[in-house]
Amino acid sequence: MEDKLMLMIPGPTPVPEQALLALAKAPIGHRSGDFSKVMADVTEKLKWLHQTQNDVLILTSSGTGAMEAGIINFLSKGDRVLVGDNGKFGERWGDVCDAYGINAERIKAEWGKPLDPEAFRAKLEADTNKEIKAVIITHSETSTGVANDLETINRHVKAHGQALIIVDAVTSLGAMNVPIDAWGLDVVASGSQKGYMIPPGLGFVAVGPKAWEAYKTANLPRYYLDLGKARKDAAKNSTPFTTSVNMVMALQVTLRMMQTEGLENIFARHLRHRNATRAAVKAMGLTLFADDAAASASITAVIPPEGLDAEKIRATIKKHFDIVMAGGQDHLSGKAFRIGHLGFVNDRDILSAIAALEATVQMLGYEASIPGAGTKAAIQVLHQG
Amino acid sequence: MEDKLMLMIPGPTPVPEQALLALAKAPIGHRSGDFSKVMADVTEKLKWLHQTQNDVLILTSSGTGAMEAGIINFLSKGDRVLVGDNGKFGERWGDVCDAYGINAERIKAEWGKPLDPEAFRAKLEADTNKEIKAVIITHSETSTGVANDLETINRHVKAHGQALIIVDAVTSLGAMNVPIDAWGLDVVASGSQKGYMIPPGLGFVAVGPKAWEAYKTANLPRYYLDLGKARKDAAKNSTPFTTSVNMVMALQVTLRMMQTEGLENIFARHLRHRNATRAAVKAMGLTLFADDAAASASITAVIPPEGLDAEKIRATIKKHFDIVMAGGQDHLSGKAFRIGHLGFVNDRDILSAIAALEATVQMLGYEASIPGAGTKAAIQVLHQG
Repeated sequence: MEDKLMLMIPGPTPVPEQALLALAKAPIGHRSGDFSKVMADVTEKLKWLHQTQNDVLILTSSGTGAMEAGIINFLSKGDRVLVGDNGKFGERWGDVCDAYGINAERIKAEWGKPLDPEAFRAKLEADTNKEIKAVIITHSETSTGVANDLETINRHVKAHGQALIIVDAVTSLGAMNVPIDAWGLDVVASGSQKGYMIPPGLGFVAVGPKAWEAYKTANLPRYYLDLGKARKDAAKNSTPFTTSVNMVMALQVTLRMMQTEGLENIFARHLRHRNATRAAVKAMGLTLFADDAAASASITAVIPPEGLDAEKIRATIKKHFDIVMAGGQDHLSGKAFRIGHLGFVNDRDILSAIAALEATVQMLGYEASIPGAGTKAAIQVLHQG
Repeated sequence: MEDKLMLMIPGPTPVPEQALLALAKAPIGHRSGDFSKVMADVTEKLKWLHQTQNDVLILTSSGTGAMEAGIINFLSKGDRVLVGDNGKFGERWGDVCDAYGINAERIKAEWGKPLDPEAFRAKLEADTNKEIKAVIITHSETSTGVANDLETINRHVKAHGQALIIVDAVTSLGAMNVPIDAWGLDVVASGSQKGYMIPPGLGFVAVGPKAWEAYKTANLPRYYLDLGKARKDAAKNSTPFTTSVNMVMALQVTLRMMQTEGLENIFARHLRHRNATRAAVKAMGLTLFADDAAASASITAVIPPEGLDAEKIRATIKKHFDIVMAGGQDHLSGKAFRIGHLGFVNDRDILSAIAALEATVQMLGYEASIPGAGTKAAIQVLHQG
């Protein structure tokens, strides 16, 4: 049905009506006093969301642009870094390092498995010359639905004492707990079309004092993505280059909504939706790609049983129920599908998605589960809270 | 009055209601078939607007991001380039070159004066070893309202035979004639909040075959701004990184409007508005910063007479008439103001702005001109067409 699409992908995520209406307001000047006030308010709220007193800078870019900025502003050519690589995005940050001549040592885990914090501990402990300049970690790996154990890996980085921790929080910020100041996370990057509940178009980078210290000597070339420039203008409630005014206005609306809901409630909601989705998938006899212990609160990757094609499931649920789920990426293409439960998603959305998924696999001839079993499992989890 | 602001600045420019409504539509997936169709349509229309069969790539960035991409994808460290520098933006492209270790030789002109094509001819002719890899030109210098003679400078670049021409068309594309294929412009960058009539948030780079040839050996580091990646995905009607879906939907609307109006009419409208604005400013006894022969069709910088403060004029016209004009940049701050007549601007807007400007200077005690003289001059130009 036209205009009735429901996004259950890990971004773009659904956007609340009041944010859409803010997008539709005539733009104002990005150098105006009125807009400075919006920037001041948004920046305060971003700090609240990031649980930090550090700078939180706004870029007109995707999450990848934000993460590249988070890497290239604090490192120099030839610097040794450790990059966690257990999915498409971890792989990408290694590629960014390669592009800039950063010496990236990948610490890999199979797709669907979490990074092993011990592997980081071993490398960091062995680095008595303090050659490792940074550890780059994807918190929630969007391609697999795996949450890496950022807290433990970060503890090993802190024990090292010198290395920065640079975090891809693109699908965790605003969904999972990322307590920047409590954990001492140096650089945290994210993107607007995820937990922020607005369309794609803005990137965010939180930068702490230790990273700014590294900035002083970091020598990789940059201009548009130069966070020093962004910081200088942020101090004047502005941006060095024209920011996406309408997007910032929409962001002001969703940040206000997030403050009303409260961080604890936001995180609890995402966990509840994750747990309900996973219980339902199990009850239906489908396979969860990530283990319970390492499951992202934002996204669940599912492997259909033998004989059921992931792309067919996606096409059918879209055709009959106007629900968009994400496909598998790279070598998971056609083999897995991914359910996004991230951002502006309520309990009703989870039940809708699960019930429609049950209907869809029935339509495709899957008879190993009793229709309603998935929904029942989801209801039980939601009921427990 | 609330919600009654009229933007007469060189970006953000006014956005048509139908584009605002497109912005307010719930986003769709950036990897969906539906969005690919939008991308295909938008790309075709962008080629029409750019008068080219070359690639026209969409970045989620400001115009500066697009221009940086246009520079760093086709050059290597130590390359010698000529950079036209007669305003804030020309200066910026020199700074971008410096940031990447490109050997940028500035060809300067005073702010308010156009670049001298002869200076380029002399340098290019003297370069018998063909060391000059590119010539970087700002077509319409937003900070001064000067239009540089791109056509003539480009002719000298073509006579050189080797150097690329890289053009900042941020405030000229969609307002002034930039016939990419007819002139053989290798790289042309622009931004969404200008002639495109949508808010800030997207950048565009048109890239021709000679630039792609240079891309093969260009070795400056880049990832997010890598146009080779953008080209590869553009061939599949997609983007390497999540694009600003809602902005692209709005762009589709305004490109359709531009096609309905027609390129000739768009250019004629901007020229008419420039001429009317300039005639009015002269009739009021204020000083035009740029000469008639080098006046941008998009923006007119004005120097108020002795005793009238540019910032006071801006504050007053905003307070009493809800019209936003731009201030002077850098050393022109407080000394000049700038009237944007770019994008979604009709004849009525020009008359409104001029009449309000007349009322404003009267309020501020300027008695050297007869109230209505500026409006009369503008009406005469508009009447002549």
